[in-house]
Amino acid sequence: VFDTISFLSDYGRADEFVGVVHSVIRSIAPSVAVIDISHDVPPYDVRAGGLVLARSVQYLVPGVVLAVVDPGVGTERRALAIEVGDGESVLVGPDNGLLAPAVALVGGATRAVSLTATDYHLPAPGATFAGRDVFASVAAHLCNGVPFTDVGEIVDVATLCPGLLPVSRPEGNGIAGEVLWVDHFGNAQLNIDPAEIDAFGERVHVRVGSSGRTRTAVRATAFDELGVGAVGLVLDSYGLLALAVARGSAAVELGLQAGDEIVLLPFDEDAAGDSADAGDRRAMPVTLRKRSSG
Amino acid sequence: VFDTISFLSDYGRADEFVGVVHSVIRSIAPSVAVIDISHDVPPYDVRAGGLVLARSVQYLVPGVVLAVVDPGVGTERRALAIEVGDGESVLVGPDNGLLAPAVALVGGATRAVSLTATDYHLPAPGATFAGRDVFASVAAHLCNGVPFTDVGEIVDVATLCPGLLPVSRPEGNGIAGEVLWVDHFGNAQLNIDPAEIDAFGERVHVRVGSSGRTRTAVRATAFDELGVGAVGLVLDSYGLLALAVARGSAAVELGLQAGDEIVLLPFDEDAAGDSADAGDRRAMPVTLRKRSSG
Amino acid sequence: VFDTISFLSDYGRADEFVGVVHSVIRSIAPSVAVIDISHDVPPYDVRAGGLVLARSVQYLVPGVVLAVVDPGVGTERRALAIEVGDGESVLVGPDNGLLAPAVALVGGATRAVSLTATDYHLPAPGATFAGRDVFASVAAHLCNGVPFTDVGEIVDVATLCPGLLPVSRPEGNGIAGEVLWVDHFGNAQLNIDPAEIDAFGERVHVRVGSSGRTRTAVRATAFDELGVGAVGLVLDSYGLLALAVARGSAAVELGLQAGDEIVLLPFDEDAAGDSADAGDRRAMPVTLRKRSSG
Repeated sequence: VFDTISFLSDYGRADEFVGVVHSVIRSIAPSVAVIDISHDVPPYDVRAGGLVLARSVQYLVPGVVLAVVDPGVGTERRALAIEVGDGESVLVGPDNGLLAPAVALVGGATRAVSLTATDYHLPAPGATFAGRDVFASVAAHLCNGVPFTDVGEIVDVATLCPGLLPVSRPEGNGIAGEVLWVDHFGNAQLNIDPAEIDAFGERVHVRVGSSGRTRTAVRATAFDELGVGAVGLVLDSYGLLALAVARGSAAVELGLQAGDEIVLLPFDEDAAGDSADAGDRRAMPVTLRKRSSG
Repeated sequence: VFDTISFLSDYGRADEFVGVVHSVIRSIAPSVAVIDISHDVPPYDVRAGGLVLARSVQYLVPGVVLAVVDPGVGTERRALAIEVGDGESVLVGPDNGLLAPAVALVGGATRAVSLTATDYHLPAPGATFAGRDVFASVAAHLCNGVPFTDVGEIVDVATLCPGLLPVSRPEGNGIAGEVLWVDHFGNAQLNIDPAEIDAFGERVHVRVGSSGRTRTAVRATAFDELGVGAVGLVLDSYGLLALAVARGSAAVELGLQAGDEIVLLPFDEDAAGDSADAGDRRAMPVTLRKRSSG
Repeated sequence: VFDTISFLSDYGRADEFVGVVHSVIRSIAPSVAVIDISHDVPPYDVRAGGLVLARSVQYLVPGVVLAVVDPGVGTERRALAIEVGDGESVLVGPDNGLLAPAVALVGGATRAVSLTATDYHLPAPGATFAGRDVFASVAAHLCNGVPFTDVGEIVDVATLCPGLLPVSRPEGNGIAGEVLWVDHFGNAQLNIDPAEIDAFGERVHVRVGSSGRTRTAVRATAFDELGVGAVGLVLDSYGLLALAVARGSAAVELGLQAGDEIVLLPFDEDAAGDSADAGDRRAMPVTLRKRSSG
C-alpha cells in the first residue's frame, strides 16, 4: 500500500491532461498524494524524460512513480509496472526505455508485469491517452493495495527496454562528453565527472563539437564566483560538471542544446586540432551519482 | 459537504493568481483537495474554457468545480453556483456560458443561485479578481457545508447563459466540421464523430476551409501506425476524430488552429469544388460523448 | 508546528526542481501541504519575486513561506529563517531582499536565524541547489516542530537585507510612478494609489517615461466598462491603479514592462512638456496595502 504517486509526463500544462490524471487517481485512491515532477518533457522525447527521472529518483518519496512519455501509445509496445527495492517502490509507464535509467539507479528491477489486466483500466473511447486510461488507473489501484501480480502478467526483467545514455571518453589530452540537459537557467549539464578533469587545473578549454569553437571556462563551486559574462565549469547539484554563466545562460552564450558534443581540454593545450569523431561516440547505462546515504 | 475542488482558469501560471486561490481555499476549508485542471485557457477565451471543462467533466471527482474565465468580471454578469446530479456536484463560475457545456454533459442543472450573499466573499480592494474574492471563497464555504441556498438567490435555470458549440453538417458528399481544439502535441480535434465517415473507407480527403487546400488522411487508432510525415485521422481519447501526425504536429503541418473549418470527403471524390459557405455554419449544444459506465 | 508551506521560486516548471522540492518536503514532513505560489519569477529577479510575495502574503495560510530566488547561491550570502507575527509564520529563503517586502507587510520580523545547523540540510553533491538541500529541508523540519533556534544562529533583524521599492512622487501637476508588474493579461500595475489622482477626474493623461508618448486613460472599476481598444486606469485587486485594456493587453498597447516610468497628469493639462528626471526617482519600502480585516 503506497500513499504517494510521483508523476512525470510530456503532457505540458496547457491542456487538461495532467489535471484529468490527478482526478482519475483521486477517484480511485482518494487519500493518495500526487507530486508533479515535471510535465514539460519535450513531446515524445523519451531520452529527456528518462534523464529527468534519473536526476529525480534519489529524492522521490517511496511509492509509485507514474511516468508517461509514450510516442508508441496504442501500438504493441508493452505497458509496464516495474518493482524496485524488493517492493519499496513501483514504476509505471511504457516499455520504451523511459524508466530504465531510474530503475538502474535504484538497484535494478526485482519484478515486472505487463499491464494486461484490463479490469484495472478505465474504459477508453480511443487508444491515445493511456496515461489516463491505463497507467494512472493502475498506479492508483496499486496504491490501494491491489497485488503487483494482479495488474498483469509477469515478464522477464531481462526483456525490458534498456535506457542507453552516452558516457564520456578520452579525446587526445582531453575528455569528450555531451550536454545531457540545459536547465531553466541555461546551465548545461555534461556527462563528465569533476574527477575526470582534476588534472586540468582551474582553467579549462571547452570545445563545442558542432561548431569547433573553443572558450575558456573557469572551475567554480557557485555561479556568483564567476565574473560577469565569464563561462564557468560548476559542480552542479547532481555532482556532475555544468557549463554556467553567472546570472546569464551558458546555453545561449555558447549556443548549446541537449545532445551537443563537448570536449574539455587542459588550458595549456592547443585548443585547435582535429575535432571529435562523432562515429566514435559510445553509449552506456546512465551514471548519474547516487545520493550518499545520511 | 465536498472534499475536492477541481479548478480551471485562464490565469496562467506566471503570476500568483492560482497560488493565492489555493491559499484562500485552504484558509477557509483546510482539508479540501484542490485539483488544477488547467490554467492556460487562452485569456478571456470562454469557448475554449468551456471545451476544456466539457472534455474533463466525466473524469472529475464529484465535488465542486471552480471555473473562472471571466472577461466581464466586475460588470453586471451574474456570478453563479450551479447544482448538478441532484447535489452530487456544484459548478461555480461566471454566467457567461463557460459552465454550460459541462453542465449539459452531466445531465443539466438541477438548481442555480446567483452569488449575492457577500458574507461568503472576501473583502475586495478592487473588483477585478472575483476568482479570489467571490468564486474561490464561495467554493470553499460550500465544501464546509454551507447550504447551497445560503450563498445567494435562487435563479431560474432556464435563464442561464447557454454554451453554443458548432456541430458537423453534410457538405456535398462529405462532412463539414470544425477544429475544436489543438492540443499540446499538435493534434487537432474535430467535432466529427467517427461513425459519420465510416462509409468513406480508410483514406479520406481533408479540405482546410480557410485555404481550400486538401490533404489525404489515413484512418488509424494509434499515432505510431502512421508513416513518417503522413496525416492521420485518429479516434482520439474522447471518442472524436482528430487530425494527427506521428511524432509531429498536425496543426503545424496543416496550418490549423481552433475554430478552423474542415471538410472531410470520400477519397474517390474530386477534392476540389465549391468551398464551404461559412454563412451556413450552425451552432448547437456540445456533443462530446459521455463516458460509458463501467 | 505548521501544516502548510507556501512555495515561491524562479525555478520554472520545465525542469524537475519544483517537483523534487515537493518530494523532499514530503519525505521529511509527510502530512504538510505545499501550495505553489509561483515558480515563474524571471530567473534571478529578486525584485519581481519580492513583489509576488508582497502581493500574496496577506492571502497566505499561516505557516512556512519558502521563497527561493537566489542568484548568490553557494556564496557567503546568508540563508535565513525569519519569524513574523510572534511565531505565527516563518519565511525561509536567502538574505538578499526577497523576503523583506512581505515581512514588512505583516508587521516586521520578530526573530531571525542564519541556517547554519547542517544537521537539518540534505547532503549536497554540489552547492547550487540550496532550495532543495537547505531551504526545503529546513522548512520541512520547522513544520515538524524543530525549534526555530535549533536550525541556526540568531541574527540581529536589523542586519537583514532590505527590500527597496520605488514610491510615487509629485511631478509638476501630476504624479510620477512606475510599472511594478505586468500580469498574465497585460495589465500594468502602478505604484500609485487611486487617492493620489482623485482630483484628476474621470480622464487622465498617461505619459510613458521611456518614450515620452502620451495616451488618455479612463478611470474604471471593471475591465469591460472600457470601450474596445480604450486604455483604462482600473482599481486593481490589490487596491492600486493598473493600466488596462478590455480583452486586450495594456502592456502591448502601450509598450510597457516592469520598471518603466509612468507619469499621470490631469486631462486638461498640456501633456507635453518636460519629461521626468530619472535621476530623481526614489526608493522606499513597499507600500502595497494590507488586507482590511474581516
